[in-house]
Amino acid sequence: MYKLYYAPGTCALASHIALEEAGADYKAERLDFRANQQQSPEYLKVNPKGRVPSLVTDYGTLTETPAILAYIAQTFPKAKLAPLDDAFAFAQVQAFNSYLCSTVHVAHAHKGRGYRWATEESSFADMKRMVPKTVAACFDLIEKGMLKGPWVMGEQYTICDPYLYTIASWLEGDSVDLKTLPRVADHMKRMSERPAVKRVMAEQQAKAA
Amino acid sequence: MYKLYYAPGTCALASHIALEEAGADYKAERLDFRANQQQSPEYLKVNPKGRVPSLVTDYGTLTETPAILAYIAQTFPKAKLAPLDDAFAFAQVQAFNSYLCSTVHVAHAHKGRGYRWATEESSFADMKRMVPKTVAACFDLIEKGMLKGPWVMGEQYTICDPYLYTIASWLEGDSVDLKTLPRVADHMKRMSERPAVKRVMAEQQAKAA
Repeated sequence: MYKLYYAPGTCALASHIALEEAGADYKAERLDFRANQQQSPEYLKVNPKGRVPSLVTDYGTLTETPAILAYIAQTFPKAKLAPLDDAFAFAQVQAFNSYLCSTVHVAHAHKGRGYRWATEESSFADMKRMVPKTVAACFDLIEKGMLKGPWVMGEQYTICDPYLYTIASWLEGDSVDLKTLPRVADHMKRMSERPAVKRVMAEQQAKAA
Repeated sequence: MYKLYYAPGTCALASHIALEEAGADYKAERLDFRANQQQSPEYLKVNPKGRVPSLVTDYGTLTETPAILAYIAQTFPKAKLAPLDDAFAFAQVQAFNSYLCSTVHVAHAHKGRGYRWATEESSFADMKRMVPKTVAACFDLIEKGMLKGPWVMGEQYTICDPYLYTIASWLEGDSVDLKTLPRVADHMKRMSERPAVKRVMAEQQAKAA
């Protein structure tokens, strides 16, 4: 039995979808970011970084989306969520997820979380202005090369797909026009039609209501 | 035969050390960042992101430090650079490396690469002022919990160690006092005494001269 801590609209969606795709026995525990619950003393015991996702397992707690996703793929091999028998192909999966985590998500975060890296209102406004450009540049690389199609890694659906879907769902809010990214838009549509994705979205939206 | 593209003083040092520890047959290819060689048309064919490291293998090119490090560990199992037979322990290794990549390295990058996320000189100065604080906060978590000792994951040396060593080598330049981080300082000293690390540092420094 796993427990996933998440908040709606965050990157924890990727791990949530992966658990559902894997057929894992898990409970999704919603944190209220408006009440700053991720910084509560109780939650800081789960994850001292005060972020989501956190995945509580029988062996301990895991953090960081790329690590959680690879763990789910390795723990549920029958779900075939990563090329586990091919070190190079697995590394490509990891490289894609690491790019989303350390570059694309970070570019996006400068819209609303500039206080992580600066203190002045003028800096926050400056960062915010640049987000459409930086996020678009990241997605241009994804559109033109990284996304092989129909899934990120080609014919096989992997842990890259829920992660891309999660971050692509922020594009509209980041003022990046999806019409300029037809392959990403197609991927989003294909993702939204998967039964596991529908179940997770229903659960996250029901709890948020 | 592998080829690693690197530049001195960058996070590519972690992959360089891991290749050396693994006993891999590789060539280290230095890029001149002062001449902006990472943005040259030739290099952009290797890595369209225009960053280091890139690891050229017989199967294709890999990017992103956490992915390259895990690939080296999986490809050279005899070097025992990761707990490959324990999915949870492997995920902990990955979570640590993902944290270095997406949070610690990103915090550091706001000192000299603010232009990635903003356009105004005042924003760059603001970001720069905050770096000692944000990097110190990251390293406080590492010092107090993540670094198990003597190595990051405890008794076993892993791919977390060259990566921590690499990013910790930036602390002085980030105005974080190593005296406040005795366990990190101890780890740095232990790393610097490893023959593989000495060989890599000698090679990077010789080529840079």
